[in-house]
Amino acid sequence: MFTLFYAPGACSLASHIALEEIGAPYEAHKLDLAAGDQAKAAYLAVNPRARVPALVTPGGALTESPAILRYLADLYPERALLPADPLARAQAQSLMNWFSAHLHIAFAHIFRPARFTDDQSAAPAMKAKALETIAAAFGEMDARLGGKDWLFDDYSVVDPYLTVFCLWAGRVGLDMSACRNVLAHADRVAQRPAVQRVFAREGIRIDG
Amino acid sequence: MFTLFYAPGACSLASHIALEEIGAPYEAHKLDLAAGDQAKAAYLAVNPRARVPALVTPGGALTESPAILRYLADLYPERALLPADPLARAQAQSLMNWFSAHLHIAFAHIFRPARFTDDQSAAPAMKAKALETIAAAFGEMDARLGGKDWLFDDYSVVDPYLTVFCLWAGRVGLDMSACRNVLAHADRVAQRPAVQRVFAREGIRIDG
Repeated sequence: MFTLFYAPGACSLASHIALEEIGAPYEAHKLDLAAGDQAKAAYLAVNPRARVPALVTPGGALTESPAILRYLADLYPERALLPADPLARAQAQSLMNWFSAHLHIAFAHIFRPARFTDDQSAAPAMKAKALETIAAAFGEMDARLGGKDWLFDDYSVVDPYLTVFCLWAGRVGLDMSACRNVLAHADRVAQRPAVQRVFAREGIRIDG
Repeated sequence: MFTLFYAPGACSLASHIALEEIGAPYEAHKLDLAAGDQAKAAYLAVNPRARVPALVTPGGALTESPAILRYLADLYPERALLPADPLARAQAQSLMNWFSAHLHIAFAHIFRPARFTDDQSAAPAMKAKALETIAAAFGEMDARLGGKDWLFDDYSVVDPYLTVFCLWAGRVGLDMSACRNVLAHADRVAQRPAVQRVFAREGIRIDG
């Protein structure tokens, strides 16, 4: 039995979807980040770094989306949630790491500039640069998705992880009109029944 | 047969050490970052993102340290370079992801502020914040290493990955005197014959 600690629309969405795709029983425990739930003692006992997601397993807690997604895919091989070939599986790990260390970090410069500087006046230039970085990353993903339904040969946990950032692009007002393949991919992800159940639970609406 | 593209002292050092620990034949191909080797056509054909490390395998290239390290450990299970227990292995993946997305990124704000802002005057405040982030991360690792030789039960690819950042802490002049466990851990890593061979090849000296 797993417990996932998540915040609606945060990157924990990818782990939430993976659990729902697997179909094994789990509890989803919502944190209200605006109310500071992540910094309260109850959650710090789960994840002292005060971030979501955290997956509590019978053997202990696990954090960081790329590690949770890989762990769940490894544990339920019959669900085929990552490529089975060792190199392709590693390349999926690589792409998840890049989402985490490059794409997510760029968004963090927009959402949480205080993590990177105490000088508030520096935030606008940081945000402008982050938008450039994000646009380039989506450009790369758009080229990759040309003529393909999914990021790898079949649907994998990496696909909804990309969709998280697609939703965030909407939040920061990024013009995604040039990224037709990414938008079509997000629609494809959003049509999956497991994804729709999680979107409903987290209160996520897909616009247009 | 593998080929590793690395730059001396860069985070590719961790993958270089992993290959040497394994003992299988590989070629190490040095890039001179100051000369811009990473942005030349020959390397962009290997890794269009112009970063090290890249591991070229018979089936294709693999990037991102946490993915390369996991791939090599999975491929040579007899070397026991990651915990065998699935949850502990996932927790090792988690820690590697955190090194990549949190600790490495903090250093990147010091070494390469232009990745995060076009406003050069913002760099000093960004660097100051990054030093705080790095100090806190080393504090967490120091507490974790209390009474332990390695980050997990046994030596793993995660250990020399931490040592990379310990070397970088020296470069940015961070006072590590409070992090005795991390320093002792780095000494322990540096005593391994495979690590000494790679340090010699990359021209890395351990000072005091």
